[in-house]
Amino acid sequence: MTSAAACVTGLVFDRSESGVRLTKLDAPVSETSPYEMVRSQELNALLGPKASMQAVDLLCDLHNTTANTGLCLITYSDRDWICLHICKHLQAQMASTPVRYVHFDIPLNEAYSLDSVGKHGFAMEIGPQPHGVVRSVIFSAMQEGVQLMMDWICQFNSGTLFEGGWVDVYTMVKNIDYPRDSETHVITAAVHPDLQDRDFCLLHPGDPMFLCFSGETLRYRGKEALYPFFINEGAYYEKGVALSLARKRRVQIPSVL
Amino acid sequence: MTSAAACVTGLVFDRSESGVRLTKLDAPVSETSPYEMVRSQELNALLGPKASMQAVDLLCDLHNTTANTGLCLITYSDRDWICLHICKHLQAQMASTPVRYVHFDIPLNEAYSLDSVGKHGFAMEIGPQPHGVVRSVIFSAMQEGVQLMMDWICQFNSGTLFEGGWVDVYTMVKNIDYPRDSETHVITAAVHPDLQDRDFCLLHPGDPMFLCFSGETLRYRGKEALYPFFINEGAYYEKGVALSLARKRRVQIPSVL
Repeated sequence: MTSAAACVTGLVFDRSESGVRLTKLDAPVSETSPYEMVRSQELNALLGPKASMQAVDLLCDLHNTTANTGLCLITYSDRDWICLHICKHLQAQMASTPVRYVHFDIPLNEAYSLDSVGKHGFAMEIGPQPHGVVRSVIFSAMQEGVQLMMDWICQFNSGTLFEGGWVDVYTMVKNIDYPRDSETHVITAAVHPDLQDRDFCLLHPGDPMFLCFSGETLRYRGKEALYPFFINEGAYYEKGVALSLARKRRVQIPSVL
Repeated sequence: MTSAAACVTGLVFDRSESGVRLTKLDAPVSETSPYEMVRSQELNALLGPKASMQAVDLLCDLHNTTANTGLCLITYSDRDWICLHICKHLQAQMASTPVRYVHFDIPLNEAYSLDSVGKHGFAMEIGPQPHGVVRSVIFSAMQEGVQLMMDWICQFNSGTLFEGGWVDVYTMVKNIDYPRDSETHVITAAVHPDLQDRDFCLLHPGDPMFLCFSGETLRYRGKEALYPFFINEGAYYEKGVALSLARKRRVQIPSVL
């Protein structure tokens, strides 16, 4: 992030993930290759190559979710102070939308999101919004988030001093699938009404998690209270993810000039 | 609705419409015919034929919507006292969900919904729920609505007296499209935050209707206050429908035994 350029890409109304794992980016493609593989290589050529000096400085990929996440910066690092400072800036400036920093603790070469192609990067995720729908308040919040990020970059490039401080980082611990029939694997429950829409509200052992179609309540059986997010995200049914759970800790970031 | 049988069909999590217009139901099909045309003829054979004495007595088609409609019975008649009595029954019994009766004022032979195949019929529509997602509260409300309808049918078939009374009927007057660029026809606005989620709340002339991506507010220019519904339904973007507007009036229904 030393040059004046930053790259913002993505579609607000698309949850597609580009599959830009390093191992896939050199695979030969043909006319019969899946669109996602071809497109990921195109994007890698345009914005990367991933993990190279030629990659763009900062890549922000815009997503929306049916989960009540507010605005999240989703990253593969809990110590990228560029991303952390941008998050702190958004948290200070966005009055009406909660802004959180989510960390997927996997090696960068296994990261599959478009933003992993940049030297720095994150997905800007916002919800709740049904897929295929534009909700004005969500659209405006995304617009504001992008503008504030661009403002921060301009100020950074102009030599503005940014004070250090603390940012809460939510590190993903595990995913939880929907309950399923042991033989057919058909889903047998929905997210419990007490949990639905309560993304980033601490889930304690014993709290209701699912309400079976039969009427039975299933509870969170973990031993540690954790923060749920991506609760009932529409695109994750096929991935077997009803929600993700994260551990929160405060991370100190230095002043930057 | 004189026999003991009633037919309930449909999928809770599907907005597909079967295209069961009478003119399409006799059209020849081949291997290259669209799935919807083949399926509509199969359903017509199974549950109809439409407008015949062999058609099922009552057909209820289950739908969900991203719009904040609560539960609606959507019909092609404002004087079908079977449907009106079922609506009245649901309104009396469902404490947590608003129940409304919507009337599409088009001839039955132009009706395209599956429920038009039955001698009596309606779509049971419920929202808000993103497509591809099950929300427990919405699922339970649909389950309750179906059970109450079945209870009513059982009681009706057992000779129970149902008192007459009044039902509010919302008759669809017109659809309103999203604002679009005059040349490209690309959508240029979202439903205004003051209107979003306010299905069945009276919309007055001059009330905000759309918020343009440019920031401009567009207002309702009609001369008559009307009731909006299907506000920002995800499946209707492709139909050019941002919302529908209805006129409300009270309809008297007789006692039945």
